[in-house]
Amino acid sequence: MKINGKKYHSVWKLDDDSDTVVIIDQRFLPHQLIFEELDSSEKVAVAIEEMHLRGAPLIGIVAAFGVYYAFKEASSKEEFASKIERLKNTRPTAINLEWAIQQQIKLSEELSDQDKAAIQSALFENGFKILHEDIELCRKIGENGLSIIEEIAAKKPGETINILTHCNAGWLATGDYGTATSPIYHAHDKGIKVHVYVDETRPRNQGARLTAWELSQHGVPHTVIADNTGGHLMQHGLVDVCFVGADRVTRTGDAANKIGTYLKALAANDNDVPFYVCLPYTTFDFSIRDGVKEIPIEERGSEEVKLIQGKHNGEVKKVLLTPEDSPAVNYGFDVTPARLVTELVTERGRCQANEESIMKLYTDHA
Amino acid sequence: MKINGKKYHSVWKLDDDSDTVVIIDQRFLPHQLIFEELDSSEKVAVAIEEMHLRGAPLIGIVAAFGVYYAFKEASSKEEFASKIERLKNTRPTAINLEWAIQQQIKLSEELSDQDKAAIQSALFENGFKILHEDIELCRKIGENGLSIIEEIAAKKPGETINILTHCNAGWLATGDYGTATSPIYHAHDKGIKVHVYVDETRPRNQGARLTAWELSQHGVPHTVIADNTGGHLMQHGLVDVCFVGADRVTRTGDAANKIGTYLKALAANDNDVPFYVCLPYTTFDFSIRDGVKEIPIEERGSEEVKLIQGKHNGEVKKVLLTPEDSPAVNYGFDVTPARLVTELVTERGRCQANEESIMKLYTDHA
Repeated sequence: MKINGKKYHSVWKLDDDSDTVVIIDQRFLPHQLIFEELDSSEKVAVAIEEMHLRGAPLIGIVAAFGVYYAFKEASSKEEFASKIERLKNTRPTAINLEWAIQQQIKLSEELSDQDKAAIQSALFENGFKILHEDIELCRKIGENGLSIIEEIAAKKPGETINILTHCNAGWLATGDYGTATSPIYHAHDKGIKVHVYVDETRPRNQGARLTAWELSQHGVPHTVIADNTGGHLMQHGLVDVCFVGADRVTRTGDAANKIGTYLKALAANDNDVPFYVCLPYTTFDFSIRDGVKEIPIEERGSEEVKLIQGKHNGEVKKVLLTPEDSPAVNYGFDVTPARLVTELVTERGRCQANEESIMKLYTDHA
Repeated sequence: MKINGKKYHSVWKLDDDSDTVVIIDQRFLPHQLIFEELDSSEKVAVAIEEMHLRGAPLIGIVAAFGVYYAFKEASSKEEFASKIERLKNTRPTAINLEWAIQQQIKLSEELSDQDKAAIQSALFENGFKILHEDIELCRKIGENGLSIIEEIAAKKPGETINILTHCNAGWLATGDYGTATSPIYHAHDKGIKVHVYVDETRPRNQGARLTAWELSQHGVPHTVIADNTGGHLMQHGLVDVCFVGADRVTRTGDAANKIGTYLKALAANDNDVPFYVCLPYTTFDFSIRDGVKEIPIEERGSEEVKLIQGKHNGEVKKVLLTPEDSPAVNYGFDVTPARLVTELVTERGRCQANEESIMKLYTDHA
């Protein structure tokens, strides 16, 4: 991905000799580009919990470095376990968090006969392995999703393909490319005319702040819309296809994603607009079948609904939207039942959102 | 309705000898209570167009006074007609605007043999007649809608009834009581335990700003939610019933209402949550059958999406939410097809959302 023309990944080493990693503190985008250095497990926990970074794949990647710092800091097994618990409890919905932490714990156990320095070094390097694997997963999701856009383009040659997306399943949510945005970037780079309707995605406006900024940086035509708007657009034939990401997908294809995704899936279904969920294997939770019942949905602070952040006179400020004394509630995710999903787009290809099709692609995870 | 314990209607005379009317400039609520005096047709046009006031019934009421000022100001039939055109073109979707203007024009024509002063006086008084009729319509909608809440309460005695509403179809949108809120106020005043989930209703946040404030002033328990949240709540049994208002309803029951209403109707339908549209006869457009095709949908300025208003350090300010150069689009309404509406709640009673049932209630409008 590029920022002001310069290439970046979502996480990088501060310098060659350092074990400090750097992320973009996404809370201030699009108004301010602020980098944050992470060099302890607590800093990683805070950065995940308070959403300096977000997006299921990126949470996983950064959590992997959190495990490295936890191991380096801990003087006992108990201390290590307690720091791991702290990391695990930062965000409940994204399965990638658990997945990445497990990868690192497994590695540390496999190397348990080696000295602490060797294990540390392996954990740190494995963080980057997870990052680079994620980038490759996202690239493949893009290639596989590109075929969908090409199929639509073939039906309306020369015309613009209108794509709706919710939240930010872009490169800022992954190592690079994004999940839902990867097919879009691939199509745009291949010269297919695409235009993206970006749901602003209240309460934290990851669409208006992050997806719009990403697309803008890459030169992809886009239009920001209130979350209320997608149904009207689909009723009037203004959306050709929806691409969204996911935070956890069951083995049956139920998909937890940012709150409001379910409403767009309903509208897509009601208007025969194809609705695709894009995810790497690290976002599957092969252990569960009923998304609505079994996926834990994070409830966040009500101030995220009552206040909103934006730029005023060059400064980033929060303003109060509601009466002072009106309560608010803030669920972070909802679950789109598999029946509303046209297909899943994974690094291994496209498949129907049902157990048979998913497990045919992922026989090694049965 | 009460503001800080004092009784108000949504429009009133400045004083007994004056032909100036006063409204609440709703743009500054809930942070500032600002009254605005209207004493010319242009001031009325601007107040409607720039949404100092809004809500289909209230737009109609205030437009009626606009016709009075237009008649008073005009020195020729052509000038009157041109001022009427100006008023008509302020907001395209709310049918009440046309209805009220027609009422006034008809009256002026009926009195065409009288002198200008007499016609003026009749038009001014008729503005208040329309106001008081609207208040009575809303009161009856409340009584008829109350039966729905009582039916639900009978099934879960002693428990709180959770109601979801979108936008502000409250007393601020009418003369008094509101449409969608009238059953809620009636139930609350009768001692039934109700709790309202208030969709914030981007882009202009009429829910977070106006409905929350109204309910707060009346002591009705409520919780503000992002527009994305309703689907999740309904999936988890947290909503017993939805009440919304309307800006124009076809003779077949298709209902134009604030953008995003359709998405909530889809979610209600998907989760067997009853979904009611509340309206007075003045909101019906008996001349059309296909809401999605025939109801004009207002497109407003994109800055309403890109910027949002709230309170910061005691001052009301607008902050920028998106990248400076990202475009936005702003449709004001969407149409909920009749198939998703459980019943319509009118001043004449409840009816199914189909032509046969509607025209049985409104045989005099056939």
